[in-house]
Amino acid sequence: MNKEENCVFCNIAEGKIPSAKVYEDDKILAFLDVSPTSKGHTLVITKEHFANFLMVPKDLLAQAFDVAQKIGQAMVANLGAKGINILTNVNEIAGQSVMHFHIHVIPRYDESDGLSISFKPAEISKYNPPAIASEIKKGL
Amino acid sequence: MNKEENCVFCNIAEGKIPSAKVYEDDKILAFLDVSPTSKGHTLVITKEHFANFLMVPKDLLAQAFDVAQKIGQAMVANLGAKGINILTNVNEIAGQSVMHFHIHVIPRYDESDGLSISFKPAEISKYNPPAIASEIKKGL
Repeated sequence: MNKEENCVFCNIAEGKIPSAKVYEDDKILAFLDVSPTSKGHTLVITKEHFANFLMVPKDLLAQAFDVAQKIGQAMVANLGAKGINILTNVNEIAGQSVMHFHIHVIPRYDESDGLSISFKPAEISKYNPPAIASEIKKGL
Repeated sequence: MNKEENCVFCNIAEGKIPSAKVYEDDKILAFLDVSPTSKGHTLVITKEHFANFLMVPKDLLAQAFDVAQKIGQAMVANLGAKGINILTNVNEIAGQSVMHFHIHVIPRYDESDGLSISFKPAEISKYNPPAIASEIKKGL
């Protein structure tokens, strides 16, 4: 299993750094974020080191999001969350701060929560939709 | 297959509303967001109607995130994206505007992109981590 010696999430997965665990199996770990943006803010990680979402093998990705879903359901049932944000960032430009794949599961209680997601949408006609769709499709 | 007559994404899935398609199979559709927050901003949906991320059956959830990953990889390879945000919102309080499960796949090119995600983290000691972790675990 690939590990990075100086990776904080690898060290959490190995138990070298303590965490408030929410879920654990042989492949996946979920624990409370130490800088929670709301009460119960949880991170779901693969125990194996992958730099980000784009690098995770299909079966592990499926397991991680399955765990994220169950945690989200539990937050609604047991913490009284009224909504959930599921978020994973790839690379620093997108806000990724720890370079080990993690899914944020963020329970929302009211509008004054610590998380703010602001879209500044453009009209799609600003771009060339068929050309862009075609460029993406080429890579699939 | 469950459908909602007045759901815009059900209508897109059925082809009644046109879209710039990025990917399609019998279960999953991906298309360009009509209000893109960056060039290539794509939505991945299940063709079947589920209100949000918490409602999607395990196998379909896995397929949807597998497609989202491949699209993210293609955005890096073919659109020159330097990062990606993967985001799905549950309920209005979390920013969900269309009540049909969708994953945002948002390519990032520079800091001045239209998407802003702002965390206002608290110290975890503000909460009671063992008690919160225990509450979530009860629901798993």
